[in-house]
Amino acid sequence: MTSEFAAIARILTRLPQPPDSTQVWIGDDAAVLPGPGYGPTLWAADTVVAGVHADLSLTGLDDLGWKAMTASLSDLAAMGAEPAHALVTVAGPPGTDLDLLYQGLAAASREYGCPIVGGDLTGAAVLVVTVAVSGTCDGDPVVRSGARPGDLVWVSAPLGAAAAGLRRLRARAAGDSTPDGLSDSDAEFLFRAHARPSAAIPEGRAARLGGASAMIDISDGLAADLSHVAEASGVGLRLESVPVARGATTDEAMGGGDDYALTFCAPEAATIEDAFDGLVRPIRIGTCTSDPAERTIAGREFAPTGWEHWV
Amino acid sequence: MTSEFAAIARILTRLPQPPDSTQVWIGDDAAVLPGPGYGPTLWAADTVVAGVHADLSLTGLDDLGWKAMTASLSDLAAMGAEPAHALVTVAGPPGTDLDLLYQGLAAASREYGCPIVGGDLTGAAVLVVTVAVSGTCDGDPVVRSGARPGDLVWVSAPLGAAAAGLRRLRARAAGDSTPDGLSDSDAEFLFRAHARPSAAIPEGRAARLGGASAMIDISDGLAADLSHVAEASGVGLRLESVPVARGATTDEAMGGGDDYALTFCAPEAATIEDAFDGLVRPIRIGTCTSDPAERTIAGREFAPTGWEHWV
Repeated sequence: MTSEFAAIARILTRLPQPPDSTQVWIGDDAAVLPGPGYGPTLWAADTVVAGVHADLSLTGLDDLGWKAMTASLSDLAAMGAEPAHALVTVAGPPGTDLDLLYQGLAAASREYGCPIVGGDLTGAAVLVVTVAVSGTCDGDPVVRSGARPGDLVWVSAPLGAAAAGLRRLRARAAGDSTPDGLSDSDAEFLFRAHARPSAAIPEGRAARLGGASAMIDISDGLAADLSHVAEASGVGLRLESVPVARGATTDEAMGGGDDYALTFCAPEAATIEDAFDGLVRPIRIGTCTSDPAERTIAGREFAPTGWEHWV
Repeated sequence: MTSEFAAIARILTRLPQPPDSTQVWIGDDAAVLPGPGYGPTLWAADTVVAGVHADLSLTGLDDLGWKAMTASLSDLAAMGAEPAHALVTVAGPPGTDLDLLYQGLAAASREYGCPIVGGDLTGAAVLVVTVAVSGTCDGDPVVRSGARPGDLVWVSAPLGAAAAGLRRLRARAAGDSTPDGLSDSDAEFLFRAHARPSAAIPEGRAARLGGASAMIDISDGLAADLSHVAEASGVGLRLESVPVARGATTDEAMGGGDDYALTFCAPEAATIEDAFDGLVRPIRIGTCTSDPAERTIAGREFAPTGWEHWV
């Protein structure tokens, strides 16, 4: 158990629990709270730190702003929810180009129909951007703990593109121009996956409507995030293979962060395939098993080592 | 106009406005959003940065946690709203005593009946704690822009205690033990005002029920915060005097930050006095005037120079 999750687990024991089983408080992608009659209110927050989650020598402040908004919206996607409103708080050094930062925040806000309704602005030695988002859901949100043995495991897209994009940006910055056979458009796709990731809102909704039993967004890497689902659900994971984005490595697909694709479990393949009609089809990668200790891919064990922010 | 407010004003022009006049987005203490039938949902976030808003050589991480929660709750108080739920995001260096920090957060959460339902935890070179809170209001929230010429101006408590407490903590840390005639209990009150400020939730509700036309919490100093109300309302300010907490100076009362008392305007004194029945009585300090440029106290001009976080 990594330090971040150990700390969260310790803190969890000290905080009050929700009053009934219709609510979800700490421990899932988003909190599930009583809503205005037709469904619950979802609520999530994520923090992006310059130098930890974004290297400003490689991407711009507008990209950091976009990413901060998308990271929080991705938590709503992972519940099968739709965005409603956002609060943005920025702590940063004097001279920070706030206009550029907010260009990226506002662009993502427009793209996902999630207006920024308030926030805070203050000084700090490093740039820290926190976005809190609310969402709505016209049904039961998909939590992490609902997977059952026999459920199929899916991902919403090939993985590793963001990590591969970052690797290529670093190589370029270091003056490495070794050709690797990737087309310009494939290379551009990888850069964009890193700088301007997408929140999989339609895919999360489709998975929910298709009967997904558990879901999480892949922000820390598939191995780590899918392990959270397995732990919360008390199931094992027997993966057959993992789809790798063109230009990425298997390690990047398994352990790279920031893809913001979704991984989910569901008992029925047919209902999932129907629900994704009109969207890019999700990919089946394995099965949930009854041995909660199982973590295998193609018969070999894998470790839940993803991207660890708290280092 | 200071840099923080200049930046906010610039950014405001770029972001969408609310769809109708029942909603308030950026620019007030809290956003006012559609709620579950019986009243709106309020939503606010504040950030506390170690070394900017709290000197960890003088107070503890539990105090910083308490203050982060209270600062956000105070934004709800300033609308006349009641707390509902909180999200806590923490970015900080490895080795940060998260247990101590969350002790303070959890204590304030219990005190104000505002459970922590989610959040995020990540690494950063400095400790930055953001608390987003939601609230409810069984009536129209009190915004900043409703003051009219002739309205009376009030504060919910004598001011400057937090700034005086910080000054005395600094003097003690510097080895200064010059007696200043303050009793131990008065000194303790000042320390506590700095380390464990209160959010004036009952006072904000009373002001709203008593017909307050405009309200704000005094987080940046009375002169600065009341000037925000005057600007938003298009009125002038003619103050007679300002109540100073025992042991504080007039400068600390006018310009010290972090008191988290409320200042509000109201047309009728009688309804305010009735509504505060059972609470500490608010203090009348002046009148709103029709000259929007007027900022006087006892006939002398004052400048809206409060505590400027973005420096």
